[in-house]
Amino acid sequence: MLPETPTIQTEVQVMFFDTDCGGVVHNLAYLRFIEMARTYLADQLGMGFVAMSRDQQYPVVVRTEVDYKRPAVLWDKLVVHGRLESLERSRFWCSFEIIRPCDGMLMVTCRQMLAVVQMPAGKPLRLPAEWATRYAHLRKA
Amino acid sequence: MLPETPTIQTEVQVMFFDTDCGGVVHNLAYLRFIEMARTYLADQLGMGFVAMSRDQQYPVVVRTEVDYKRPAVLWDKLVVHGRLESLERSRFWCSFEIIRPCDGMLMVTCRQMLAVVQMPAGKPLRLPAEWATRYAHLRKA
Amino acid sequence: MLPETPTIQTEVQVMFFDTDCGGVVHNLAYLRFIEMARTYLADQLGMGFVAMSRDQQYPVVVRTEVDYKRPAVLWDKLVVHGRLESLERSRFWCSFEIIRPCDGMLMVTCRQMLAVVQMPAGKPLRLPAEWATRYAHLRKA
Amino acid sequence: MLPETPTIQTEVQVMFFDTDCGGVVHNLAYLRFIEMARTYLADQLGMGFVAMSRDQQYPVVVRTEVDYKRPAVLWDKLVVHGRLESLERSRFWCSFEIIRPCDGMLMVTCRQMLAVVQMPAGKPLRLPAEWATRYAHLRKA
Repeated sequence: MLPETPTIQTEVQVMFFDTDCGGVVHNLAYLRFIEMARTYLADQLGMGFVAMSRDQQYPVVVRTEVDYKRPAVLWDKLVVHGRLESLERSRFWCSFEIIRPCDGMLMVTCRQMLAVVQMPAGKPLRLPAEWATRYAHLRKA
Repeated sequence: MLPETPTIQTEVQVMFFDTDCGGVVHNLAYLRFIEMARTYLADQLGMGFVAMSRDQQYPVVVRTEVDYKRPAVLWDKLVVHGRLESLERSRFWCSFEIIRPCDGMLMVTCRQMLAVVQMPAGKPLRLPAEWATRYAHLRKA
Repeated sequence: MLPETPTIQTEVQVMFFDTDCGGVVHNLAYLRFIEMARTYLADQLGMGFVAMSRDQQYPVVVRTEVDYKRPAVLWDKLVVHGRLESLERSRFWCSFEIIRPCDGMLMVTCRQMLAVVQMPAGKPLRLPAEWATRYAHLRKA
Repeated sequence: MLPETPTIQTEVQVMFFDTDCGGVVHNLAYLRFIEMARTYLADQLGMGFVAMSRDQQYPVVVRTEVDYKRPAVLWDKLVVHGRLESLERSRFWCSFEIIRPCDGMLMVTCRQMLAVVQMPAGKPLRLPAEWATRYAHLRKA
């Protein structure tokens, strides 16, 4: 059996409020698109947000790296492809690509490192024990 | 002694993320400017937000009316003028004008009706007793 | 043949960035949801945004009235129902309801008055001639 | 004469719309704070935005790296410290720290690589010739 890598695809269409007077999508807008994709990816990882919100345990972004490759414009249909990239004891990385399917162009790439914390104290928690076996192929040395 | 009317002025400068590809400020951005002004106005009204957040009592916007008069552009310096307009038993209205001081132009007008609610239940509370005397000139029949 | 009334339904799911520390959806977020619905509604009205962006003719919001009825929370699935409500010579109104389908609750209602303007001058244009006949049942005296 | 390093400080106060239902500032909000600081820093670098917007030459963010250190909360007063970090032929890096002055805590660090592009083609331009001498101490090998 091939090892499983959690992945997500979410679609967005560029709205006026995503663009700026330079005529292209503003860099903050891409990160909002990625927030949505990561939220669905985390949900798929078994971090049900309603439950987490009840337990006050949240996956939080510790680091973001984003490369802006090409500018999208008003009304573009974009797809955010996200996947679990790697994991450590108490942290994991997700990676994202924003693609414009009509011409196959890669607009943005992004990597985010996350931790799971107990709020309101903000204390980091270890990742769920089952991840180590389930996603063994993604573990970092 | 003249009756007191709480007022606020806050300055903002238009950033790229406030504009859209039509070349002007996006209508959502003006409302974010007004959110800031209203927050400072509410603070002045004795609704200290840190305290309210502790007590879980929040002034919440029940209705917004906004008229977009003229479009602002990138880098414009704008001033939001806000004031307590009127009050009832458990609701009050604030009104706002967004002015561009360099030419005196009126860009946006806005009125908001607020209630004070006990969260998380969302139960409406009566306005503080002292308001009725302090702002008697603003009471609505 | 029954008269046609342009309508739109768009779905959104509440993300972390839509909520605030009061535990509920922030009032600006609902307006972003409505922006999306109105954009799709305008598209359906024959105002193709790519074309309009090329001709520099844009439907612009002149007035917004919004009533906040009930607070939505993280992860809620909401539907924005929008329709063309009425039209005049050079202005039209759209109305919106944000519903939470899981319990049928009405969260937000909104009305927006729009004009079509030629940018960058901002000169108002008359509505397309065919609207008068096509949406005759929505014309205001 | 000591070499000059362009720096900027901008103040922000955390509003409701900057927070989320986890009770802390949302990661997108910090990047909006940094956008403001970078815009003022670019202005100080002689990239007057009104002029650039006229010439359609814009500094654009090519890469962002952001580390979230500690969570800020509602009503916190924060200061964004930005500076020109280094420059190459056609790219430059800016670095930012978001500090909470009341306790000296470092909340967020960020580095951004920028290029100057001619819009709408998006063609990269060389940095202004005078930068090489003026900021010689910041040049990268």
